[in-house]
Amino acid sequence: MIDRPIALDAMGGDHAPSATVDGACRAVRDGINVVLVGDEKVLRRRIPKGVDIEIIHASEVVGMDEAPSSAVRSKKDASVRVAARAVAEGRASAVVSFGNTGALMAASLMELGRIDGVERPAVIATLPRSDDGQVVILDLGANVDCKPSHLAQFGVMGSVFAQNVLGLSQPRVGILSNGEEEGKGNEQVRAAIPVLAKMPIQFVGPVEPADALRGGCEVVVCDGFVGNVMLKSMEASIEIAGKVLREEILRRPGAKLGAKLLTGAFQRYRTRTSAGAVGGAFLLGVKGTVLVGHGRADEWAVNAAIHRAYVAVQQDLTGDIGNAISVALAAVEPTDT
Amino acid sequence: MIDRPIALDAMGGDHAPSATVDGACRAVRDGINVVLVGDEKVLRRRIPKGVDIEIIHASEVVGMDEAPSSAVRSKKDASVRVAARAVAEGRASAVVSFGNTGALMAASLMELGRIDGVERPAVIATLPRSDDGQVVILDLGANVDCKPSHLAQFGVMGSVFAQNVLGLSQPRVGILSNGEEEGKGNEQVRAAIPVLAKMPIQFVGPVEPADALRGGCEVVVCDGFVGNVMLKSMEASIEIAGKVLREEILRRPGAKLGAKLLTGAFQRYRTRTSAGAVGGAFLLGVKGTVLVGHGRADEWAVNAAIHRAYVAVQQDLTGDIGNAISVALAAVEPTDT
Repeated sequence: MIDRPIALDAMGGDHAPSATVDGACRAVRDGINVVLVGDEKVLRRRIPKGVDIEIIHASEVVGMDEAPSSAVRSKKDASVRVAARAVAEGRASAVVSFGNTGALMAASLMELGRIDGVERPAVIATLPRSDDGQVVILDLGANVDCKPSHLAQFGVMGSVFAQNVLGLSQPRVGILSNGEEEGKGNEQVRAAIPVLAKMPIQFVGPVEPADALRGGCEVVVCDGFVGNVMLKSMEASIEIAGKVLREEILRRPGAKLGAKLLTGAFQRYRTRTSAGAVGGAFLLGVKGTVLVGHGRADEWAVNAAIHRAYVAVQQDLTGDIGNAISVALAAVEPTDT
Repeated sequence: MIDRPIALDAMGGDHAPSATVDGACRAVRDGINVVLVGDEKVLRRRIPKGVDIEIIHASEVVGMDEAPSSAVRSKKDASVRVAARAVAEGRASAVVSFGNTGALMAASLMELGRIDGVERPAVIATLPRSDDGQVVILDLGANVDCKPSHLAQFGVMGSVFAQNVLGLSQPRVGILSNGEEEGKGNEQVRAAIPVLAKMPIQFVGPVEPADALRGGCEVVVCDGFVGNVMLKSMEASIEIAGKVLREEILRRPGAKLGAKLLTGAFQRYRTRTSAGAVGGAFLLGVKGTVLVGHGRADEWAVNAAIHRAYVAVQQDLTGDIGNAISVALAAVEPTDT
């Protein structure tokens, strides 16, 4: 067991504080040290007898509808900010939040700060691949307009993530593009390719979305605008696919029996194709482990996210990213000066 | 019946010339006038007796692996170029090709030219919406980096397309973004919003991929890089969704019967979720009707595409786009000068 607890923003998320407290209690029973951050009175009531879980009181909350940066700046005692501060002060090993994503990013930047050499932190998540492998993609929305150096750093951070958290030894890193031939890609992609090629990673060049999802690489680099569009298009398509298939099943009289038999298959389908199933996204590039949970998380998803943050801390994800970024900077410096 | 035939590049596509000739013969039997463009000897052999179909001989072909622009420029007698030329010369009413997309675009620009006032032609396709409606999206790959004026013209062309071809009276036009709140979107999107707002269309502002696919608008405007990523992510997700669901069905002993019953449902699912089912994409903004077919098209898809091009010609899609663009230009001019 790690000595310092995982700090959970217990007030964030559509089902907080019930889902957050219940999920945290599950994690504690699994042997993970968790500290709840939020309104002590509210949280205390929810904790069952016999569960040993610490609380750090925070008197404020950032709402889902607030402008993240200004809300976090003005609310020094917001639960998400207090949780990030606990990591900065060495009282906690990681912060996990299911609240406003922008607020978590702002709190992480304010309280933890960027890793030396990282220009822009990025959000990374794991997507299911058709060959049953996994592919990580970054950035998913933190940075909508990116310079080549930002994308190159995403490649380094994504490679470290795939090695440490997914346990892949030689992750292949691709840059998302509209084609793999010479001359394809937009200006940003074409400018980033030679910079990514200099990084100490296994860069495989441009990849199309379908190739990435079929096993063409383990890490996909893109700007946050394109990454967000890709992620949300996938989520929507999978939802539509399930809906259409269900409709077509129910339309056939002979297939109604099949539909009944298939309830369990549909459930497993949803679990396998949902990005939330793998426990949320991480914010990489700040001085601390930050897990960006999905607002809709239930207690099981909260528990899974805490487990995932715990593994990232054990693997020293943040330390390894710091080392990899300084190696990468050293690799490009001779040609830059 | 329209007097001038649809010119089909009979040499383009993975299954050409069998799928193209057979599909064209189907269309002729349906009462549509078609002219085949390609190697006369090869094509003549394939046409069944009793089918009345004209051939325009073209001695060259652009391969899928050739650099489109230079290949089209050097091969004056390439089938795709001869087909486009037939439209430019008034011998045909539309060009349909299932070959190299870049070659079709290059041939259209060279032989037909741009509509006055259109800075960049764009590729548009119809996607299935979860509410069983349809949404059109442009650009899908012709222009990877776009100015605000390009995106505004896409909005006008997309609106005309939704009215004429899909028969929607007041199509709502949105711009693809990573969020609908103030301040979301990348630089390009934020710059295009005020220009789109000036167009004589029903502009509804930024839309996220999921909202567009759930019925938030009928026309989605984006640059060709983002549009291509969205389209291909959707195609890949739908493929993965079908695969995962099939695996989960077959994993359950009790559900094997269900899987058997479901074969037909899966077939309908594929038809409903495939962009190809609606007959390919159009290149808008050139002086002529240009249908960009999918390389994998079989004879049924070829027939569907010819029908779709026929409808577009009947609706005078190209003429209406020309009119709408000149109205739009007049609408913005007073503020520009």
